[in-house]
Amino acid sequence: MPSDIRRNNVSGDLVILARDRARRPRDHNLIEAPSSPASCPFCPGASTKTPAPIRSHTSPAYPGHKAAIRVVPNLYPALTPEQPWQARAEGPYDTFTGVGAHEVVIEAPDHVVSWLEVSAEHIAEILASWQDRIRDLRQDPRIRDIIPFKNVGPRSGATLAHAHSQILALPLLSPRQQRLLDRGESHFAHHGRCPMCDAIDQECRTEERLILASDELIAWAPYGSRASFEVWIAPRIHQADFTQAHPAILLQLADHIRQILARWEHALGPVDHNLVLHSAPFAFAGKPYYHWHLEMLPRLSTHGGFEWGSGAYINATASEVAARHLRDLNC
Amino acid sequence: MPSDIRRNNVSGDLVILARDRARRPRDHNLIEAPSSPASCPFCPGASTKTPAPIRSHTSPAYPGHKAAIRVVPNLYPALTPEQPWQARAEGPYDTFTGVGAHEVVIEAPDHVVSWLEVSAEHIAEILASWQDRIRDLRQDPRIRDIIPFKNVGPRSGATLAHAHSQILALPLLSPRQQRLLDRGESHFAHHGRCPMCDAIDQECRTEERLILASDELIAWAPYGSRASFEVWIAPRIHQADFTQAHPAILLQLADHIRQILARWEHALGPVDHNLVLHSAPFAFAGKPYYHWHLEMLPRLSTHGGFEWGSGAYINATASEVAARHLRDLNC
Repeated sequence: MPSDIRRNNVSGDLVILARDRARRPRDHNLIEAPSSPASCPFCPGASTKTPAPIRSHTSPAYPGHKAAIRVVPNLYPALTPEQPWQARAEGPYDTFTGVGAHEVVIEAPDHVVSWLEVSAEHIAEILASWQDRIRDLRQDPRIRDIIPFKNVGPRSGATLAHAHSQILALPLLSPRQQRLLDRGESHFAHHGRCPMCDAIDQECRTEERLILASDELIAWAPYGSRASFEVWIAPRIHQADFTQAHPAILLQLADHIRQILARWEHALGPVDHNLVLHSAPFAFAGKPYYHWHLEMLPRLSTHGGFEWGSGAYINATASEVAARHLRDLNC
Repeated sequence: MPSDIRRNNVSGDLVILARDRARRPRDHNLIEAPSSPASCPFCPGASTKTPAPIRSHTSPAYPGHKAAIRVVPNLYPALTPEQPWQARAEGPYDTFTGVGAHEVVIEAPDHVVSWLEVSAEHIAEILASWQDRIRDLRQDPRIRDIIPFKNVGPRSGATLAHAHSQILALPLLSPRQQRLLDRGESHFAHHGRCPMCDAIDQECRTEERLILASDELIAWAPYGSRASFEVWIAPRIHQADFTQAHPAILLQLADHIRQILARWEHALGPVDHNLVLHSAPFAFAGKPYYHWHLEMLPRLSTHGGFEWGSGAYINATASEVAARHLRDLNC
């Protein structure tokens, strides 16, 4: 059954109703155990368990391998392309057909679990595969935004251990993307500057929350971090559209990500986490007020009723403290 | 060190930076085990571990007991009253002093864990204690909104098993309260009606998502549920301010909550969950477009990168399916 997108008209919450992901009610409580290589559907010999790849990519880390990185459709997709885009009312409520795409990037042919097990060069190829999917998917005029993300470890929402990322293509803007655009537009109207450019300038000047700085990028603990030890990485120059980032930037980004992962592990022990890439929705790809960035979120604590009810967050670690811990490590 | 409230000026995320809740970085990964009665700080004999009560309430469930329900300050408060309200800039960022209150309602003198172990009459007294705290705290002109909530079970963010709720008093409106108000105001401007009243009318007419209906209240699976088997309970008549709910309504509310908890347990097994009460921020207590309600959220799945990055939700269970499962049970 194809999915729908529903809006709760009282709260404004936006929900993808993905019935194909449903299991029977009694199964809901089971957390799937991280798979071992023998039972892993992404490992060699299990290719019958995954759909045929949409794309395959080579990588210098796997010489001679034509499919070091494979992009496949998600077997339990939240959104699918095989339906017309339609908005309709159900009584007083808003419903949209669940048009879009939900893909899985299988990031290595062998049973790699962490990006610390592979080289920065290989991670740069994974990031290039995200760019490739964005360029391809945005040719569909029904698709308005694409969110690549990674869930790592059971506390992050991941159900499989084999290194993978996901790409979700949406027929409308998500609430947080809309908020990034609205704030950016308003800031630009008042100041003539991009708010992220202002933040980057502040972080480079004070260095209080700065963790890494290279020619093209900086990594810092953002002011108003939602999670303890949250890290953002963004290009120093203004760039809205992630597909404009050239290979040298991808390699620096990969290196920064690996360094943050290593420093997290050193400071916090093994830590489940999420990565989310924010690139401008296509209609805004040239805007002077949207700035692409990668958000890295450790999953150290659990959201309670306050976070669900308020949409605000309680964080016990100041960004400056997190940055100091992560900056001074050399690992 | 008193807490601050920070806004991430790029994303608009609102964060309470509660440094007193911080533990050393290495401790972050530890989930505290649910306490046993012997080590429970809320049980008899452990009164030295909790601060002196702000309020004590009697309950028909504990005859002769003067402190069947005790409200105490949270030992690791996210917000505290002992500081002036101040907004200031830090470079391009917005900071507010963390003025407010963070209280814990210890809901029973003995080691009760679930509301299914106590009577509806006792739960009604707990709800009355929430009303009492709202009435008292809103006399402080710096406080603009109060959120009572419950975390039950380790997957809900709870760290103690002994039945308790929390009350957080805020010096500004949370993003979700602001959204409820904005949507309500706009709906009222266009239609002259409260959006929640419209939703309640729709649910009573179609009965597709209806679970329980009594003289004063209905319980239903909301259209656009963020979580599988999410349930909302609200008064049939328009009422913005929860403190206006009279004792008979509190008793029906308590009964509805118990019935939903019992039906969840029957349909899903033991389920960690959050409860959040939404009552109008005080300046809006008489508004015709805000409608108090209780949100009940089972914690069956874990949010991943998509939810963090997009502010939208993926849910595998249609509200109609959840309602059918829960409606037809008689337990």
